[in-house]
Amino acid sequence: MKAEIEAWFKAFQDNLCNALETCDGGATFKEDVWQHQESGGGRSRIIENGKVLEKGGVNFSAVSGSLPDKAAAALLLPDNHFFATGVSVVMHPHSPMVPITHMNVRYFEAGNGMAWFGGGIDLTPIYVDTAQAKAFHEALKVVCDKHNVTYYPEFKDWADNYFYIPHRQETRGVGGIFFDRLQETAEISIRDRFNFVKDVALAFAPVYTRIINENRDLSFNEAQKQWQYLRRGRYVEFNLVNDRGTKFGLETNGRTESILMSLPPQASWIYNFKTEENSPEATTLQYLKKGIDWVKA
Amino acid sequence: MKAEIEAWFKAFQDNLCNALETCDGGATFKEDVWQHQESGGGRSRIIENGKVLEKGGVNFSAVSGSLPDKAAAALLLPDNHFFATGVSVVMHPHSPMVPITHMNVRYFEAGNGMAWFGGGIDLTPIYVDTAQAKAFHEALKVVCDKHNVTYYPEFKDWADNYFYIPHRQETRGVGGIFFDRLQETAEISIRDRFNFVKDVALAFAPVYTRIINENRDLSFNEAQKQWQYLRRGRYVEFNLVNDRGTKFGLETNGRTESILMSLPPQASWIYNFKTEENSPEATTLQYLKKGIDWVKA
Repeated sequence: MKAEIEAWFKAFQDNLCNALETCDGGATFKEDVWQHQESGGGRSRIIENGKVLEKGGVNFSAVSGSLPDKAAAALLLPDNHFFATGVSVVMHPHSPMVPITHMNVRYFEAGNGMAWFGGGIDLTPIYVDTAQAKAFHEALKVVCDKHNVTYYPEFKDWADNYFYIPHRQETRGVGGIFFDRLQETAEISIRDRFNFVKDVALAFAPVYTRIINENRDLSFNEAQKQWQYLRRGRYVEFNLVNDRGTKFGLETNGRTESILMSLPPQASWIYNFKTEENSPEATTLQYLKKGIDWVKA
Repeated sequence: MKAEIEAWFKAFQDNLCNALETCDGGATFKEDVWQHQESGGGRSRIIENGKVLEKGGVNFSAVSGSLPDKAAAALLLPDNHFFATGVSVVMHPHSPMVPITHMNVRYFEAGNGMAWFGGGIDLTPIYVDTAQAKAFHEALKVVCDKHNVTYYPEFKDWADNYFYIPHRQETRGVGGIFFDRLQETAEISIRDRFNFVKDVALAFAPVYTRIINENRDLSFNEAQKQWQYLRRGRYVEFNLVNDRGTKFGLETNGRTESILMSLPPQASWIYNFKTEENSPEATTLQYLKKGIDWVKA
């Protein structure tokens, strides 16, 4: 099944790049093919300076090797051998009116035959549009419910906890879904898991391109652009300090440029920045909290 | 002696802020006094939009409390109680011709009576000026040699290894000195250690303001400014991924705004950016390596 999963992820990368290029209408993805120092490699696809997308990546990789002891211990693995394949996506639009987004689907095999899927989608608006956040969560719930009604509540909470910046006491955005170590169980086959992960992956393009198309023509001013740079600074903080995927990639000698394609084109930090009371910026911060039931909102 | 050290660090903060304000000639430091949630607190001083200094901090803190188990284990401590006091400095100039700099002096006491000093100074030029890097290291060597001729070679190597970004295979800049856990020994009293740390601290203002004054009037263009943003991106990567001080601060619930004052006002990331052959940017990268003997250079 390993080969089948890898092939599906590769084809998914092609289709997703096509969908995003069509939506953007201005730029195309450039590809870099790379080899891992142990075994395997990847295809990084980067889009830059599009009509909507300022910088984004859709990366496929399939790598096997030996984990450093620390990484193997962190994953509670019995030995250091692993195989990992997946597609990772981050999009940074030019406009502060279009949210940053991230999605990832991945399959992991440990040396002892353990295998699991992981993944997730989350949305990081610079300005939270509550109707849009609700529609985003509803779309994810539909995908989850098709497979198991326990998935959405569980994976939504998981995203709240995963996409959280403890030193800021803020979530990265309005969340989404996150799941990891979805193994075979008595009731759920590994193929059922794969089918779920496929549906999550396939949901991404329609959900995100709809948001792009709703917001791409909204006007914005310089102050809103400055706020975007500050929020991108938080995105950098999350990815470099808190994101376990980034840490795993850097510690296992992954390809640095592919891992850090997730960083924004520009970001800024102002010491002790405070939003103005009742401003749209202050309102956005109020929504960067765990536990908001967006579907009911 | 704890009280004496704390008082000296506080007075040093005052004097250093004065020296930097005088050199800058355009902006003054703003102070925030804060309390730690357990015991103690600090005085953060931030300078913004000066003539030379775009953003910088000179932070004093004196905090005691209980370390999280993970942090205590990382420091090889027998129990979780600690006291830490120090002054931390990072300066981000407007001009890409003026290097970023960092310095830190600190004193740490563990619950069992163990006590030590740590600290360091390092320089991160956007464009390496080899004569200036040599003069910088010579000045640090003079301070070290006054106390012990083994210090400079040891602490210079320590800086090469500490201020290193493994995922980029680059040093953060041209290094400097770094030392930690300088305890009392049969030959060296804790007061000798303190005297050394004082001299390191006092060397900072003359060394850095000389570099500022040599470079502040150099002209620069937009392409050089873009290169500065990229190099600041690497500074962000080091501080958030690799710097143990930042990690320690965030994990022990330090004041986030004071810890992250080290981040630049703006930074940027371009996927797989390559310098032009034989350009000043390419030359700078050649100097971002461990083991360069700047004093002999």
